Amino acid sequence: MTPRTGRHFLQIPGPTNVPDPVLRAIAAPTVDHRGPEFAALTRRLLAALGPVFGTSGPVVIYPASGTGAWEAALVNTLSPGDRVLSFETGHFSALWREMAGALGLETETDFVAGDWRHGADPDALAERLADDTGHEIKAVCVVHNETSTGVTSRVPEIRRVLDEAGHPALLLVDTISSLGSIDYRHDEWGVDVTVAGSQKGLMLPPGLSFNAVSDKALAASRNSRLPKLFWDWGPVLEANKQGSFPYTPATNLLYGLEEALLILQQEGLENVFARHQRHAAATRAAVRGWGLEVLCRDEREHSGSLTAVLMPEGHDADKVRKIILERFDMSLGAGLGRLAGRVFRIGHLGQLGDLTLAGTLSGVQMGLELAGVPVRPDGLGAALEVLRTG
Amino acid sequence: MTPRTGRHFLQIPGPTNVPDPVLRAIAAPTVDHRGPEFAALTRRLLAALGPVFGTSGPVVIYPASGTGAWEAALVNTLSPGDRVLSFETGHFSALWREMAGALGLETETDFVAGDWRHGADPDALAERLADDTGHEIKAVCVVHNETSTGVTSRVPEIRRVLDEAGHPALLLVDTISSLGSIDYRHDEWGVDVTVAGSQKGLMLPPGLSFNAVSDKALAASRNSRLPKLFWDWGPVLEANKQGSFPYTPATNLLYGLEEALLILQQEGLENVFARHQRHAAATRAAVRGWGLEVLCRDEREHSGSLTAVLMPEGHDADKVRKIILERFDMSLGAGLGRLAGRVFRIGHLGQLGDLTLAGTLSGVQMGLELAGVPVRPDGLGAALEVLRTG
Amino acid sequence: MTPRTGRHFLQIPGPTNVPDPVLRAIAAPTVDHRGPEFAALTRRLLAALGPVFGTSGPVVIYPASGTGAWEAALVNTLSPGDRVLSFETGHFSALWREMAGALGLETETDFVAGDWRHGADPDALAERLADDTGHEIKAVCVVHNETSTGVTSRVPEIRRVLDEAGHPALLLVDTISSLGSIDYRHDEWGVDVTVAGSQKGLMLPPGLSFNAVSDKALAASRNSRLPKLFWDWGPVLEANKQGSFPYTPATNLLYGLEEALLILQQEGLENVFARHQRHAAATRAAVRGWGLEVLCRDEREHSGSLTAVLMPEGHDADKVRKIILERFDMSLGAGLGRLAGRVFRIGHLGQLGDLTLAGTLSGVQMGLELAGVPVRPDGLGAALEVLRTG
Amino acid sequence: MTPRTGRHFLQIPGPTNVPDPVLRAIAAPTVDHRGPEFAALTRRLLAALGPVFGTSGPVVIYPASGTGAWEAALVNTLSPGDRVLSFETGHFSALWREMAGALGLETETDFVAGDWRHGADPDALAERLADDTGHEIKAVCVVHNETSTGVTSRVPEIRRVLDEAGHPALLLVDTISSLGSIDYRHDEWGVDVTVAGSQKGLMLPPGLSFNAVSDKALAASRNSRLPKLFWDWGPVLEANKQGSFPYTPATNLLYGLEEALLILQQEGLENVFARHQRHAAATRAAVRGWGLEVLCRDEREHSGSLTAVLMPEGHDADKVRKIILERFDMSLGAGLGRLAGRVFRIGHLGQLGDLTLAGTLSGVQMGLELAGVPVRPDGLGAALEVLRTG
Repeated sequence: MTPRTGRHFLQIPGPTNVPDPVLRAIAAPTVDHRGPEFAALTRRLLAALGPVFGTSGPVVIYPASGTGAWEAALVNTLSPGDRVLSFETGHFSALWREMAGALGLETETDFVAGDWRHGADPDALAERLADDTGHEIKAVCVVHNETSTGVTSRVPEIRRVLDEAGHPALLLVDTISSLGSIDYRHDEWGVDVTVAGSQKGLMLPPGLSFNAVSDKALAASRNSRLPKLFWDWGPVLEANKQGSFPYTPATNLLYGLEEALLILQQEGLENVFARHQRHAAATRAAVRGWGLEVLCRDEREHSGSLTAVLMPEGHDADKVRKIILERFDMSLGAGLGRLAGRVFRIGHLGQLGDLTLAGTLSGVQMGLELAGVPVRPDGLGAALEVLRTG
Repeated sequence: MTPRTGRHFLQIPGPTNVPDPVLRAIAAPTVDHRGPEFAALTRRLLAALGPVFGTSGPVVIYPASGTGAWEAALVNTLSPGDRVLSFETGHFSALWREMAGALGLETETDFVAGDWRHGADPDALAERLADDTGHEIKAVCVVHNETSTGVTSRVPEIRRVLDEAGHPALLLVDTISSLGSIDYRHDEWGVDVTVAGSQKGLMLPPGLSFNAVSDKALAASRNSRLPKLFWDWGPVLEANKQGSFPYTPATNLLYGLEEALLILQQEGLENVFARHQRHAAATRAAVRGWGLEVLCRDEREHSGSLTAVLMPEGHDADKVRKIILERFDMSLGAGLGRLAGRVFRIGHLGQLGDLTLAGTLSGVQMGLELAGVPVRPDGLGAALEVLRTG
Repeated sequence: MTPRTGRHFLQIPGPTNVPDPVLRAIAAPTVDHRGPEFAALTRRLLAALGPVFGTSGPVVIYPASGTGAWEAALVNTLSPGDRVLSFETGHFSALWREMAGALGLETETDFVAGDWRHGADPDALAERLADDTGHEIKAVCVVHNETSTGVTSRVPEIRRVLDEAGHPALLLVDTISSLGSIDYRHDEWGVDVTVAGSQKGLMLPPGLSFNAVSDKALAASRNSRLPKLFWDWGPVLEANKQGSFPYTPATNLLYGLEEALLILQQEGLENVFARHQRHAAATRAAVRGWGLEVLCRDEREHSGSLTAVLMPEGHDADKVRKIILERFDMSLGAGLGRLAGRVFRIGHLGQLGDLTLAGTLSGVQMGLELAGVPVRPDGLGAALEVLRTG
Repeated sequence: MTPRTGRHFLQIPGPTNVPDPVLRAIAAPTVDHRGPEFAALTRRLLAALGPVFGTSGPVVIYPASGTGAWEAALVNTLSPGDRVLSFETGHFSALWREMAGALGLETETDFVAGDWRHGADPDALAERLADDTGHEIKAVCVVHNETSTGVTSRVPEIRRVLDEAGHPALLLVDTISSLGSIDYRHDEWGVDVTVAGSQKGLMLPPGLSFNAVSDKALAASRNSRLPKLFWDWGPVLEANKQGSFPYTPATNLLYGLEEALLILQQEGLENVFARHQRHAAATRAAVRGWGLEVLCRDEREHSGSLTAVLMPEGHDADKVRKIILERFDMSLGAGLGRLAGRVFRIGHLGQLGDLTLAGTLSGVQMGLELAGVPVRPDGLGAALEVLRTG
């Protein structure tokens, strides 16, 4: 194993590379979470978060990981036995659905199967809604960007289908690996609960998660009968009015959040999204240049934040990842669930410059070659062509 | 208001002053939580945590605040309608009981009322257990150190009473403001679930919480019927075997945890406990020197980690705190719940040297004087006497 | 030895306690010192430094300690054999004079002896100047604040004497332990070279030093014949015009400097000076309350940044310091040169809040008692009286 | 200009990319430089520095940049009028010679002219020494690695020539851009003074510099008659015995030094040198792949720490650098002195992983193309070939 030197290349699809100023911000001394200084911070954060979600409504911050925010979205809005429609778009949509089932929601009836290479299918949704004349479906769950596959679902089309059907189901969307990376608009797209985490496009360490909440979701929460304590929106929204929280907040990560939001604001969300698209295009150019296949099958659904690469038959993705980790000190994402060993995932989200992406793709190319995967050497050049001209 | 300069005096009973090396540790770059480096960290942490809880059994780490760990202790071990015995020792025991009620547990029948100036009463427990010949009480909840009152319950005596009664109820103990500050022994005292948080004696920012789990609690968790997903011990313990977690762990706080555990180890737990007792004694000497009253009434139950000070009639504790914050840049704890305005709380836990305590008590003395509270000027001298000779 | 916990009390007269934001600033990644980002930083720094020195002229920044800036002040302005008048005010004035001698300057003829308990004597200066009708004295060296004694010389009176004598000697002033702590005005007081360092009132780690330069000093530098390379002002002033330096600058300390200047600006220089005076008054009140003697004899010359405390006969100051370091983890300044063992010095400069000063004086009081020094216990109370009412 | 995101690529030949643990180390609170904790640090540092220089003799640490250490090497060993032999190997050898001249040393007589594309010429030295039968030449100055050209002089051959001539001149070697990057052995190669700085292979921010000193140099220093104060070895070596310094040391940079030495030790000096050679080879492969010329002409003298690239006629190196900085946020070194505009320099020293080098070379390739420089696209692939197989 080559002795390690220099910064590790963390090119998994999250956690992402935390900017140095964010790391320094979280190293500031912890303050009294009931004092005036902290209350002012809370107010600034709540004001700055809205634009990132594309909402003028409330955003609930949890001192917890994204899994908790999934749970929160469900327990605040639904009641035991409620029917939830979900799409089989990948590993994380499956886990969220499994969680819903474990909470006592009905997730079998309205399950839309899929091949893990496409996003949520608006047409399939239209069919299901057409059948549901009694409006038994209480919520539609969509993972905006499937971290396991690199496929981005077209949420506006999902919304349109709901609207055209005049169906009152809540729209719950997981943006864990898209928020702050891929264009997203909670209000404009009529999303009811947006689930997010700190460790991807928000460029923070893990430990914070979020629910952006529509008026309709808030109304639903008043009638929801799933038990909720830690995840209950009510006390949080109430305490937030005074700049406080009903539990001890994760103070130092909140310092980092303020710095990260400032960084996003300085680059400009539009620029952030364009950069991710450009990096994704360069990565796909590399994959195709190597003669390999991108997992995502629909040109409209390529993820801006990660690219899953299909291995040729007979080649193990985890072997490639291991070689790359040991020889080049770079972490890539493994294939998850049914994709284990068959794909590896290149994360290109969060703070990322062109040259770090070039170094990343250089490492992938060398790793593929070292692993004996038959690839053409044209990948890197094709990527640079995109970066240079894009 | 005096312009601020120098480090803020954070003398609330938690979050506590995070040591500089811990702050620097949490500023290290986030790594792949599924990679070998992180797995090794997890294993080191799990090994180092045991001694701090006084257990050789498992400790579950949550990327969440202490409130979540309360919820975890209940939902992993109990079932709807289970009777839970709790003591009215202060604000936090009341909140925990309220949570249990909201979860569908029965908390009225076995509630032991109290005056917020004493700990959990072993004699009252003995009476209740004697009545419960059918062993309907499934759990006894004790807050080891009441952060709202500065009273430390005598857990070993609670254990003895349970043993003498031959009662099988689980013993659930909240050590949020005592772990790493006040002598505590999960295994030796036969505790079934110990609840803890990162931001007090463990000297970390908020954002991590813990459940130490006995074999008996583990067994109970297999039959428990309260719904649990995020808080479920099972997947955590399973994943921990491989050095991983079923959710994205709060990586950077875990870096800090390793550093904090090292600091505790270097000072030596026995020395840490003795230091807290000595600082608590000095603080009580100051309070009495001023002619004021310590809230805690039982000499056996004075907290090592904080001291609640009763105000003379007609004087508002919050006014004193406000003056001290504005003039001397020190945060003290407010009176909570029924004690609002009647007490203020001096935190003397976590990393704390003699001179910072002396500065703290100097600020309290000056603040009381500035607020017009009739105090004798003998407090500080009495405290120094303890520090000098202790 | 008590196990250490909490932050060390660094109460020497410098280096001082570096504010946390400054420490975090110096941890930012080093940039290209020839690139546009660094040039912009240099320009901001040079603009912000002037007001701290009270000058609209140039300030030269050295990547070196204060000793180097002493040397720079001499070699840039003087020529071999030049007569330099200096005052025996303490250890540092003696060292500076020794350096001047080693450089080939004439330092015997115009040496004004002193007792290390007073500042530079304007009357003695008037006499000497009156004798020097040929204007053979080329420079007058004054240490504004003698770090070894806690005596502040009255520079405006020195200036007045020079003016009244119509004497053209350069006025070189060492402000190493006064800049940013004690009122100082390079332009208004007609100082020609002001020597300063980073590690005292500027609240930085050691490693930077400064020369503020008058037009007259600049003119003198063109005729000066002492050899100078690293310390030569010329190339620095030339390169500074482009925002660069003729040597590799100490980039990360400069990051800290920007942050420190911001902190000074936020508090306001007037407030900074007043705070130091108030802390000095509180410290003297403590010393007198203990029944001990302050080294400085002239009420007009008490230092705002440190206080030297005379030990009673038969008591060793270093023993007291050792006890305080081992028992209370506080560093105090030793007696230097002829004062070794006879005084200890309490630094109260740089970032310092009232409660840290109270903790400091508490530690001194306890240390004196533990060392068996006969002191009255009234010191701390007297200091608090000043802090509370001041 | 592309909005910046991600870490800047600092690929100048120093300052280099400071490792994160070093940055965090320098953010630790400053301590008393006269206390026992600091003395212990000093002793550890002095012990750990020796192996990096390849010496068992003393190493003097200056709180100053490398220019100062140049001055120190001369003023400690020589006297006015002493003849100094130097080689014209590039910009820095010229500056050092210029400094020697300004100090009153005789640098004309024994100047060996050169073309800035070769190192110090052992044969030319042999000739000069043969002529100097009176041993008038007192010192031979060699820049081990010319930072302006990327040429490494063969110091062992210089030594051999001196030995074969039986000439007693001191051998003074500048290793500012080679120490900790390119094999170097102070004792074994019979060097008398080795000059080094913190900001290159030692992976620190600028602000520290060094003189490693042979017995012969120490002896010479006792007779040297150039004035020396700040740079005087004597007081430093004397104070070092007690773990202290005669000036205020740059405490926080010394914290970083300890961490950096640990990092070097962990990788192993042999591995460090091999890595630099491998990265240099990959870089030259890229340059040649592009169809460009490496400045260094002698295969034996290619630098391990930087590569200077000659531009084709009619193309401006600074334009390329500007495009690369603006488009790809990477800093490269400019051509210096007579090479201005004609070369750019790629730094590949200090902490540097393969993928960061690949990103660096990607940026250079794209920048050359964007600047319209006629290059073949084969450079990057050739470099990866070296990295993959090396």
